[in-house]
Amino acid sequence: MDSKRAGNQTVVFGSPPVILASYSVVGPKEGQGPLGKTFNKIWKDQLNGEKSWELAESKMLQEALQGSIDEAGITKDRIDFMLAGDLLNQIVSSNFAARQIALPFIGVYGACSTMALSIALGSMLIDGGFAEYVLIGVSSHHDTAERQFRAPTEQGNQRAMSAQWTVTGAGSVLLGKQGVGPRVTAATIGRVIDYGETDANNMGSAMAPAVADTILNHFQDLKRTAQDYDHIASGDLGTVGIALAAEVLKQSGSDMGTVFTDCGIRIFDSTQDVHAGGSGCACSSVVFAGDLMQRLKAGELKRVMLVGSGALHSPTSALQGESIPGIGHAVVIEA
Amino acid sequence: MDSKRAGNQTVVFGSPPVILASYSVVGPKEGQGPLGKTFNKIWKDQLNGEKSWELAESKMLQEALQGSIDEAGITKDRIDFMLAGDLLNQIVSSNFAARQIALPFIGVYGACSTMALSIALGSMLIDGGFAEYVLIGVSSHHDTAERQFRAPTEQGNQRAMSAQWTVTGAGSVLLGKQGVGPRVTAATIGRVIDYGETDANNMGSAMAPAVADTILNHFQDLKRTAQDYDHIASGDLGTVGIALAAEVLKQSGSDMGTVFTDCGIRIFDSTQDVHAGGSGCACSSVVFAGDLMQRLKAGELKRVMLVGSGALHSPTSALQGESIPGIGHAVVIEA
Repeated sequence: MDSKRAGNQTVVFGSPPVILASYSVVGPKEGQGPLGKTFNKIWKDQLNGEKSWELAESKMLQEALQGSIDEAGITKDRIDFMLAGDLLNQIVSSNFAARQIALPFIGVYGACSTMALSIALGSMLIDGGFAEYVLIGVSSHHDTAERQFRAPTEQGNQRAMSAQWTVTGAGSVLLGKQGVGPRVTAATIGRVIDYGETDANNMGSAMAPAVADTILNHFQDLKRTAQDYDHIASGDLGTVGIALAAEVLKQSGSDMGTVFTDCGIRIFDSTQDVHAGGSGCACSSVVFAGDLMQRLKAGELKRVMLVGSGALHSPTSALQGESIPGIGHAVVIEA
Repeated sequence: MDSKRAGNQTVVFGSPPVILASYSVVGPKEGQGPLGKTFNKIWKDQLNGEKSWELAESKMLQEALQGSIDEAGITKDRIDFMLAGDLLNQIVSSNFAARQIALPFIGVYGACSTMALSIALGSMLIDGGFAEYVLIGVSSHHDTAERQFRAPTEQGNQRAMSAQWTVTGAGSVLLGKQGVGPRVTAATIGRVIDYGETDANNMGSAMAPAVADTILNHFQDLKRTAQDYDHIASGDLGTVGIALAAEVLKQSGSDMGTVFTDCGIRIFDSTQDVHAGGSGCACSSVVFAGDLMQRLKAGELKRVMLVGSGALHSPTSALQGESIPGIGHAVVIEA
């Protein structure tokens, strides 16, 4: 088999694609959080002048995509493909953003793992010789997601302590074949794992086994351990999910030590009343496009694994009593 | 730029991936249609013993995926990636099928263009050196789609004459790096085009401009005309959409002649009361996996272009008065 494969689930890039630019836009609550200073743009409210939350989310995604194009300083017509996804039914935030950006468009669905999945796919398109530049953008919005998956926020329902707070934001990266910046060196595509969790207010538990499975397969495929990374960031396991994932990994012989963190835990602090942490496609995308990219570029981090975590249910499947399938996709980025 | 690129939107495969197997499962109405004999399996009713239409759709997709694996005669553990998508919110039919199949899973959303998009992506993963085998499956179900996008079928609403009938079915192909079978030689990734159509009962009009745009760009990128193809099949433009697309193409200097057909028109006949034709992700996937693959393998067709057509709206965006963005993705398959 080809040298670009390692083990069962991992690909290794021959000429690692470069992250030429990244851009993040967030809502006010995210801006007030501990990572507030790492975001490029903070909206003053959840609508920013749009007439619906859905249009606001798509506008936010457009701003993030355009931000990466501008930061990279290339003209849009040099970009070969745009990859995007979000949580909304039929990924409409992405579709409407793609209508404005007008690039050849590949729609991706990986729920909250979409950023890592898109970086993995985009890197394969570049390293495979099919693209010189790939634009990636991923969004979520607290109020669109709550209304769609749980209950309208106007209803003011009490939230479970295991619930997470869907991040309002959009993160984008522009990948290139050549140039200066952190490089995507490997990716591990996850399998769907479902241990029977049915509580849509406990996504961390639903996703933890899949994240642990992907990390274990990644280590096995590349013959690495947690000690080979400065930082391993899960997407949005939250406090409940990361404890479970760490325990599964430990029992499987992989002690994660102190390098294992979660974007959903880092994006809000305990005073912000988000309970188990942040979630949503935007959670890992803005933390990666902001904080992690800045620390990679500063040389503070040398090798980072981003493990996007996705809960692959739908409002309909949840109402029909189905359990929540989870998935984890990992990408390795090196300074 | 790399030799695998042609023009603005097209990729050309250096070592064209082989379609090693294909499999199609359909509902009873599709089985009674003019292409009935080309399908591998025909369900006797819309549920086939499952307790919901949604579970039935996912089961149908699993059967199609397993059918391709069995036909190819390889063991499942040799498959590197599974790519799948469908019309349901959060592509749950695919997610639940991926849970059963347990392969590294990449979720794709292109609405009814998903089969062509997945074949394009899967071919890039193989020709790029990242996979030896890629399994692809795409489904739709009349009753799940009608309930989600329009109205529950039990309601018995009168259907508009421009409306199309969502196909109940699932189509699958297994792509390989080497072997015997028709080959995927090129792909053109489409841009989102939206001319302002807002009628969810007139998808053909919404998608026609995007399909025409992709075909025109494909011809321009590869310096070809319609005469270079035995058969150009749009996914599900229906009678309304194909007339519009053909007219746009003609006015742009590309007379499509008699090679331009539509899977949505071919899958049902005029006695089946489907109005403008078939639609849904399954429409082009089962016509491709059945009829077109059989004619390619028999040598009756030498070079086919499948142009998947997708309407990228959601039930929410339609209710909010947004117009319907369209997309077309093309793949070229040669005997």
